[in-house]
Amino acid sequence: MMRYHVDLNSDLGESFGRYVLGQDEAILRHVTSANIACGYHAGDHNVMRRTVALAARHGVGVGAHPGLPDLLGFGRRYIAVEPEDVYNMVIYQVGALAAFAKAQGIPVQHVKPHGALFHMASKEEAVAQAIAEAVRAVDPNLILFGLAKSALIRAGREAGLRVAEEVFADRTYQPDGTLTPRTLPDAYVTDPAQVVDRVIRMVKEGKVRAVDGTDLEIRADTVCIHGDDPQALPFVTRLRERLTEADIGIQRVGVR
Amino acid sequence: MMRYHVDLNSDLGESFGRYVLGQDEAILRHVTSANIACGYHAGDHNVMRRTVALAARHGVGVGAHPGLPDLLGFGRRYIAVEPEDVYNMVIYQVGALAAFAKAQGIPVQHVKPHGALFHMASKEEAVAQAIAEAVRAVDPNLILFGLAKSALIRAGREAGLRVAEEVFADRTYQPDGTLTPRTLPDAYVTDPAQVVDRVIRMVKEGKVRAVDGTDLEIRADTVCIHGDDPQALPFVTRLRERLTEADIGIQRVGVR
Amino acid sequence: MMRYHVDLNSDLGESFGRYVLGQDEAILRHVTSANIACGYHAGDHNVMRRTVALAARHGVGVGAHPGLPDLLGFGRRYIAVEPEDVYNMVIYQVGALAAFAKAQGIPVQHVKPHGALFHMASKEEAVAQAIAEAVRAVDPNLILFGLAKSALIRAGREAGLRVAEEVFADRTYQPDGTLTPRTLPDAYVTDPAQVVDRVIRMVKEGKVRAVDGTDLEIRADTVCIHGDDPQALPFVTRLRERLTEADIGIQRVGVR
Amino acid sequence: MMRYHVDLNSDLGESFGRYVLGQDEAILRHVTSANIACGYHAGDHNVMRRTVALAARHGVGVGAHPGLPDLLGFGRRYIAVEPEDVYNMVIYQVGALAAFAKAQGIPVQHVKPHGALFHMASKEEAVAQAIAEAVRAVDPNLILFGLAKSALIRAGREAGLRVAEEVFADRTYQPDGTLTPRTLPDAYVTDPAQVVDRVIRMVKEGKVRAVDGTDLEIRADTVCIHGDDPQALPFVTRLRERLTEADIGIQRVGVR
Repeated sequence: MMRYHVDLNSDLGESFGRYVLGQDEAILRHVTSANIACGYHAGDHNVMRRTVALAARHGVGVGAHPGLPDLLGFGRRYIAVEPEDVYNMVIYQVGALAAFAKAQGIPVQHVKPHGALFHMASKEEAVAQAIAEAVRAVDPNLILFGLAKSALIRAGREAGLRVAEEVFADRTYQPDGTLTPRTLPDAYVTDPAQVVDRVIRMVKEGKVRAVDGTDLEIRADTVCIHGDDPQALPFVTRLRERLTEADIGIQRVGVR
Repeated sequence: MMRYHVDLNSDLGESFGRYVLGQDEAILRHVTSANIACGYHAGDHNVMRRTVALAARHGVGVGAHPGLPDLLGFGRRYIAVEPEDVYNMVIYQVGALAAFAKAQGIPVQHVKPHGALFHMASKEEAVAQAIAEAVRAVDPNLILFGLAKSALIRAGREAGLRVAEEVFADRTYQPDGTLTPRTLPDAYVTDPAQVVDRVIRMVKEGKVRAVDGTDLEIRADTVCIHGDDPQALPFVTRLRERLTEADIGIQRVGVR
Repeated sequence: MMRYHVDLNSDLGESFGRYVLGQDEAILRHVTSANIACGYHAGDHNVMRRTVALAARHGVGVGAHPGLPDLLGFGRRYIAVEPEDVYNMVIYQVGALAAFAKAQGIPVQHVKPHGALFHMASKEEAVAQAIAEAVRAVDPNLILFGLAKSALIRAGREAGLRVAEEVFADRTYQPDGTLTPRTLPDAYVTDPAQVVDRVIRMVKEGKVRAVDGTDLEIRADTVCIHGDDPQALPFVTRLRERLTEADIGIQRVGVR
Repeated sequence: MMRYHVDLNSDLGESFGRYVLGQDEAILRHVTSANIACGYHAGDHNVMRRTVALAARHGVGVGAHPGLPDLLGFGRRYIAVEPEDVYNMVIYQVGALAAFAKAQGIPVQHVKPHGALFHMASKEEAVAQAIAEAVRAVDPNLILFGLAKSALIRAGREAGLRVAEEVFADRTYQPDGTLTPRTLPDAYVTDPAQVVDRVIRMVKEGKVRAVDGTDLEIRADTVCIHGDDPQALPFVTRLRERLTEADIGIQRVGVR
């Protein structure tokens, strides 16, 4: 019996029609939670069904991954959406994904907003609350995934939802707990060994070294694995080995 | 206590973004079941929420109205879709609508395919079965609405679903039970009194006179009211009066 | 022969599929330039053909009205688009509109960006330049419509394009020449007589009174008529009468 | 100086947003005409600009490749579209592509309908005529590519357009000149040597052996190279060598 636990999550089901993206089948062997695109920024109803079935076969926790309605921009572009619009688009997408899970005979474990919606929800209270309320309205047992220490995590707790704080293994943190913007030179941790060490420390000690050298308190319930990175498979394989050696069990959030 | 009963259904929630269509609020005062567009041929997540809330306020049975993914063609154009694709698009759309109903605290009563999908499901066994199986997979308690005597009604029964056979008050029937194509001169019943008489006879005697003068057995569980017809409101008002006089209760399918 | 001239422009062709918007035919009798939606925020290829033909019949100057790819938001929501993306989306949409004009045997007179793209182009240099360069790349004879005194007008001039400075009859101006935001109480001129007087003064004197009481220099080459306003027809009728009385000819920009 | 000539065409620019499809850069070294997707079934305005620029750099003839508005189905699904709708969608897409060519300073050489639209245009007179008339309306100098002996070729000739009859190297023909449906066992020529021999005979003798063993008269102005086939590059390399040995020049249609 491990003393510590962490979940590994990855964005999946991002193909669309004739367009194939990602290496879903391979990634699913290594992660414990799947964030499945719901047709707004990626994915379509056929891809969703296949991906839910695949995740079910691998015993991976199925999550909805709602995004902004922007297939052209892959949901990564900021769009000025009203909170009420966000509330409704999350209900729509979570509902669609939930129906595929129902048809497959499995529960939905979690919801994690995608791309620009994830970033907006990290900082903007109104967006964060709209998402949390939408999730609760569809199913109060769903776990809300959000950036550790973010507005979304706070909104989820206030809405009475169970939350999972997510950390990014290869990104650096500012002293205030926000991620260092990608445009800055020290945004990334490039040494693979250090990446893994940071995850282990976050899980076991609840701390991470910020860019200014100070220690930051952080909870690491789940770690994001970028499935579209060509190095994703060797990275996650090594990460799993090192976590196990460090007495950290890899377990999907929903079973704890 | 009325001896006979019939449901009146209408397509609603067909606005999209800035585009407004229909007279939903007025129609909702007169019908008992609302077929709500799910974002593929019409409707968007904001319209869906408003329409579900409106239907709930009027005590009208809420139904999903899934269509082909064709906003430009309003879901009325035949598209060569595979049965598996149909299965998945129905699950997606019914799931999305169900989430709004859940958020509103009401159940989904029924599913009625829209436009070209409705017509395909009336004749093509594989499409009909795909729809019936999708509905059952999402929720076996949903009532499947289909054209009276159609492949969809048969597929629904075979799937173990409760079905509601729908009649069109102002359309004529061929001896084999199909609707006379709109392109033929005798496709429509134009005399309003006769339209109502036909509905009453279908409900009470289970019969309708076909174009060749013979009587056709038909079940009329629900009558389609075209909300986009400028004459819809006077027509449905008169129909309700005459039905009541004829000892026919107007009641949504789901309460029986 | 009039001593002064002004153009009246209106957004047209904003219907989509089964959705009808605006009162195009009526508005076309009163304006001299039509900004025709190009399928990204509104309009579709069928609507475009009809609208171009209608504008041609009324001898109105045909313009492309490119918008952000956001039918759901009617192109009114800010989207974080790169300048290169803007350049390409303008080329695409202007090209599509130009082909309908070509098929109709008429030239395209102008380009006016729509909604959020118009607002971004008024303030953001990079967006303004991208639009101006796209217009020049497709056809250097096109006239670029932009908010009077805006970044778009400057970018158009720098690109060597002919520009038309547009004023809003019913909106107030800040001393720096920007429109007073709609959220402020004094954003609108509500007295119809004053609205017309302001237009006349802008055309004849090149001046408008800003909200702080100072006079602002402004060029009024074209006035925007909001076709979706129920008062649009009486307003434009009165405006035309008063302009004529004031010795101001109403003439499309392209013929001068 | 070669005695015979043939054009090699390929579908390009089929990526969309974050989705990458095809091996455009490699294929462009070997073909003489590029059919560039126009945003309806594939491609977006950014992809179009890049692809037109790439084709220009390789001196390849640039063509519009208009398709049905069906990104989800990649334009391969039959949709019941009216001829007038086809006319308008072709004008729209050809216009958009033409604007990118204009911006690049090169002419558009040809138009080839895509997928289901190509198949419909091969058999349905009304669709074929709508496409031919749309092409002529945009630019009567455009060359219309169509299946050899098809309704589209006839419609193009009747509209006064220059046409290019296209043959499929690896498909077999019925005695009436139509392609053997893919569902039949003898639809494909599987022996690579035979594939090349058939092309050479079509170009030099204007004949091909039909499935019943009889000879069919056929014109081979251009040969379709499937860029998404993993074997496309070795195939086209070998084809070019063999054509050259056979005294057949590889030249884009537009220069003849």
